[in-house]
Amino acid sequence: MITRMSTLFVRTLRDDPADAEIPSHRYLVRAGYVRRVAPGVYSWLPLGLKVLQRVEAIVREEMSAIGAQEVLLPALLPKEPYEISHRWTEYGPNLFRLTDRKGAEMLLGPTHEEMFTLMVKDLYSSYKDLPLVLYQIQNKYRDEARPRAGILRGREFVMKDSYSFDVDDEGLAASYALHRAAYIKIFDRLGFDYVIVNANAGAMGGSASEEFLAIARNGEDTFVRSPGGYAANVEAVRINAPDPVPYDQAAPARVVDTPDVPTIDTLVALLNDSYPREDRAWTAADTLKNVVFMTVAPDGTRAPVVIGLPGDREVDPARLAVALAPCEVEAFTEDDFRNYPQLVKGYIGPAHENGPFLGERGAAAIRYLLDPRVVAGTVWATGANEIRKHVIGLVAGRDFTADGVADVAEIREGDPAPDGSGPLSLARGVEMGHIFQLGRKYAQSLGLKVLDRTGKLVTVTMGSYGIGVSRAVGMVAEANCDDKGLCWPRELAPYQVMVIATGKGEEILERATQIAEALDARGVSVLLDDRKASPGVKFNDAELLGMPTSLVVGRRLAEGVVEIRDRRSGDRREVPVDDAVAAVLTEIGR
Amino acid sequence: MITRMSTLFVRTLRDDPADAEIPSHRYLVRAGYVRRVAPGVYSWLPLGLKVLQRVEAIVREEMSAIGAQEVLLPALLPKEPYEISHRWTEYGPNLFRLTDRKGAEMLLGPTHEEMFTLMVKDLYSSYKDLPLVLYQIQNKYRDEARPRAGILRGREFVMKDSYSFDVDDEGLAASYALHRAAYIKIFDRLGFDYVIVNANAGAMGGSASEEFLAIARNGEDTFVRSPGGYAANVEAVRINAPDPVPYDQAAPARVVDTPDVPTIDTLVALLNDSYPREDRAWTAADTLKNVVFMTVAPDGTRAPVVIGLPGDREVDPARLAVALAPCEVEAFTEDDFRNYPQLVKGYIGPAHENGPFLGERGAAAIRYLLDPRVVAGTVWATGANEIRKHVIGLVAGRDFTADGVADVAEIREGDPAPDGSGPLSLARGVEMGHIFQLGRKYAQSLGLKVLDRTGKLVTVTMGSYGIGVSRAVGMVAEANCDDKGLCWPRELAPYQVMVIATGKGEEILERATQIAEALDARGVSVLLDDRKASPGVKFNDAELLGMPTSLVVGRRLAEGVVEIRDRRSGDRREVPVDDAVAAVLTEIGR
Repeated sequence: MITRMSTLFVRTLRDDPADAEIPSHRYLVRAGYVRRVAPGVYSWLPLGLKVLQRVEAIVREEMSAIGAQEVLLPALLPKEPYEISHRWTEYGPNLFRLTDRKGAEMLLGPTHEEMFTLMVKDLYSSYKDLPLVLYQIQNKYRDEARPRAGILRGREFVMKDSYSFDVDDEGLAASYALHRAAYIKIFDRLGFDYVIVNANAGAMGGSASEEFLAIARNGEDTFVRSPGGYAANVEAVRINAPDPVPYDQAAPARVVDTPDVPTIDTLVALLNDSYPREDRAWTAADTLKNVVFMTVAPDGTRAPVVIGLPGDREVDPARLAVALAPCEVEAFTEDDFRNYPQLVKGYIGPAHENGPFLGERGAAAIRYLLDPRVVAGTVWATGANEIRKHVIGLVAGRDFTADGVADVAEIREGDPAPDGSGPLSLARGVEMGHIFQLGRKYAQSLGLKVLDRTGKLVTVTMGSYGIGVSRAVGMVAEANCDDKGLCWPRELAPYQVMVIATGKGEEILERATQIAEALDARGVSVLLDDRKASPGVKFNDAELLGMPTSLVVGRRLAEGVVEIRDRRSGDRREVPVDDAVAAVLTEIGR
Repeated sequence: MITRMSTLFVRTLRDDPADAEIPSHRYLVRAGYVRRVAPGVYSWLPLGLKVLQRVEAIVREEMSAIGAQEVLLPALLPKEPYEISHRWTEYGPNLFRLTDRKGAEMLLGPTHEEMFTLMVKDLYSSYKDLPLVLYQIQNKYRDEARPRAGILRGREFVMKDSYSFDVDDEGLAASYALHRAAYIKIFDRLGFDYVIVNANAGAMGGSASEEFLAIARNGEDTFVRSPGGYAANVEAVRINAPDPVPYDQAAPARVVDTPDVPTIDTLVALLNDSYPREDRAWTAADTLKNVVFMTVAPDGTRAPVVIGLPGDREVDPARLAVALAPCEVEAFTEDDFRNYPQLVKGYIGPAHENGPFLGERGAAAIRYLLDPRVVAGTVWATGANEIRKHVIGLVAGRDFTADGVADVAEIREGDPAPDGSGPLSLARGVEMGHIFQLGRKYAQSLGLKVLDRTGKLVTVTMGSYGIGVSRAVGMVAEANCDDKGLCWPRELAPYQVMVIATGKGEEILERATQIAEALDARGVSVLLDDRKASPGVKFNDAELLGMPTSLVVGRRLAEGVVEIRDRRSGDRREVPVDDAVAAVLTEIGR
């Protein structure tokens, strides 16, 4: 059945939506693919839904090809399993929670590790039942603080999530490899540039993990690559700590007056001026910068944390957020400084001539974390915890220690790759998929065990694998548009061909309809523009809507000629009207 | 690709689930089609999901055939449109409400009238855009007080909901007729007995409305039919009120002593004994029974209501609930009687020698509603609002009036059909579909207007049409099972054929696999039972799982013979193994 523009539920809009940040969002709304209902909550109009269903079909095919079995779990879930896994609290405000009429607390599933674990526990009991891979394509819910870019980061979104269950680590590695291969096929078919990067586990727990990032200038995620093939999400980069330096010959630290040094640069200038070193000049890299943040635990507890890092580096908020998860991180306010008078703004340091930094490092102390570059024996200039005073010659490991390491400094273009594969370059992307060796975390806490070959109960090891299906529609659009609108890849376009009838005379519309019906009879999906509108309006709409191929039946029909247009290249060619069906079939590769 | 039982995510269970009320629920759980996650919340395992998807495909085909366009709206919705329509409060505790991280109130959509109205308002503006029919297949949420029977009445369930938009009543009638025809096709294809009944609008507002009820002994809904073709949900039956009776000659009412009459029967006996009538004996139908209930408005306000009806009738709770919606109805407790001393338990009546019943009928009075049979001029024996006293000869319209009519008495087998088409018979069913001429209620409150032919703004008229898709899976199962398990209709079975390899020897499994693959190559979906299990276990499982056709490759393979079994009839026939593929194709009608 051909679809007619005159009855299709679509309106092309001239104006960009007020909240559109990126071209795909703009075009998907203007071309009538999606409509906003609430922040981060969208409706799919007929054209958009068709693209979504095509993406789903590709995902289903490739998941089925690796033996994954489709199931469908509810979105409305009981609290208990998520309490056992701690995600009920760890997800913090990102979780949509609700209470039913009987007072039972429930949630809208952000992902379903707990429920799949319980479902398999419910039915399976032996190593013979494994390996097992289950998946679903389903609505997920996350109460994002900043939903953005239309369907790219929504609060209700469609996700394919799958879960593998194996009896041992080799099995998990194999299930993981199967998913990795399937994801490569899926993203190749979706037709956008992507990169596979090492990823931090984030709030999910577990170990090996990779992300599939669509490369996009306006992506939210930053990743690094090296010429030698290293690739990682910046959050996942773990820098190599230098070796410790012997410090038994080091001079004692001394406090120096440093009036009027509001910045690292002015401090370095003053040091070189008033306290020059013999071997080499002071640089920002010789200073130890101590930055204080307020952390908010999932239960609401607030506590400061101080990060010490070389003065030539900044704290990367994304890396910091991952390092401190599940706590959230907030700026340290003037009020906070008043509540913690031991933190002398502008002069915070890890040690003091009168005693250790911020009291003994213990339960009551302010938490202090150090950049991995600050190894034992390194010598620093840093704050002296007194107005207008710094301390120089302070030796890590001798004069101060910390509560732990925080590898949260920004990664810079040209930094060495951790694996020695050369200098890193930075780029941006959008997370499209995530594969993840969860290990035994969920199986352990929820008691998923099977009998192994020897009759012993062993805990199952799991993988968790996600694809943002609705997001993929956004990314495909983003990767396939120009200044006129969308240009869908053939496998994903809502209709393979748009037949445009332009100009007056009943014969034009009649002939266009005949051709559309002939194509439809050959199994080609056709959108027929049968509206009473000017050719200009129709051509503009066709470009905005983005079907890969158009056939224009217009004034030149009188001369027996119609025109085939390729949306992406803009190429046009005329063909005799009697050859139109055959020519279109050839054009679309049929 | 054939599916193997050895790896299919399924376990057949020997024991019925503790909460199973009806056979389909029992079998769907025991055969591994669905699993319970929370009250009224279910997971679909691979076999169940396949059936669900087949039902969805049928619904899509038939909706598309009437020109309905598929869209997909979110389940997570903003409060505001539902406040404007009053459903935010009218749905009461049936609505799942939640609050997002920014404090915005949201809900999980029970149905989407408001959102579709706004979406069409958003894009359309002219009569030329209409008629329009949109539909979606999507999760719906209702916090049912009593979720039951597994997927038959869930709190999260899959529904097809569609909405028609027309510029005038004739258009709405046509859209309604299209849906009615499509629903008939859908329910015919689903293959269960159903009846189309007039339905009460319930909480949705609007006018013409019919329900498609699957006929089922254990159904929740009662409906009536007459030999002449009348059919209605009992809630929708409106009885014909008799004509008023002249009462100017009627004797005055008088209060009589009625000690020791705890029931209508004892009252009638006492009246016949102590106050016999000349013309005929007292019967229960001569008494006016007054039943008091507590109503709870959506805003929580509680108020009593008294229903007066002939003493030979009971109040039907379902009819009462619909009549008093959106208020909920509760029993009137002893405490309530203490709070309303004017209601003398056992002796409530509409009038009193000292004045009208329960004070003047006005704002402060207790609401009093009368059965339509209690027309002006009818004469009654009823309570005198005093302990051990009744009043006889009380004339409706002369001695008492009411605040309105409540047609809530039970409908009885043999009652006359309201349209004169003969005596009613009662039966039970499950609501599978509902079609509904909404009219202008939502369009008016949300401002959906279009320019008509004359350039005048007119309010659009709407229809709303639903099918319980997940419920349909339950009803298909319920209508297609026997004492051994499920027996799916061919169009809905997860697999068309089950190939069962039984007995030892590699050749059996090899040959079974070959046949399964040959069928698969011909486009037949096949489930191969390749497990190491006894023939008995396999045959029992095959009957429980319910594929319409089985092919048994077993011991008699040595003699070149295999067996085809029909699940529904139990018929078995042997065929030469070399003819097995052809024989199965014939068997399944290919």
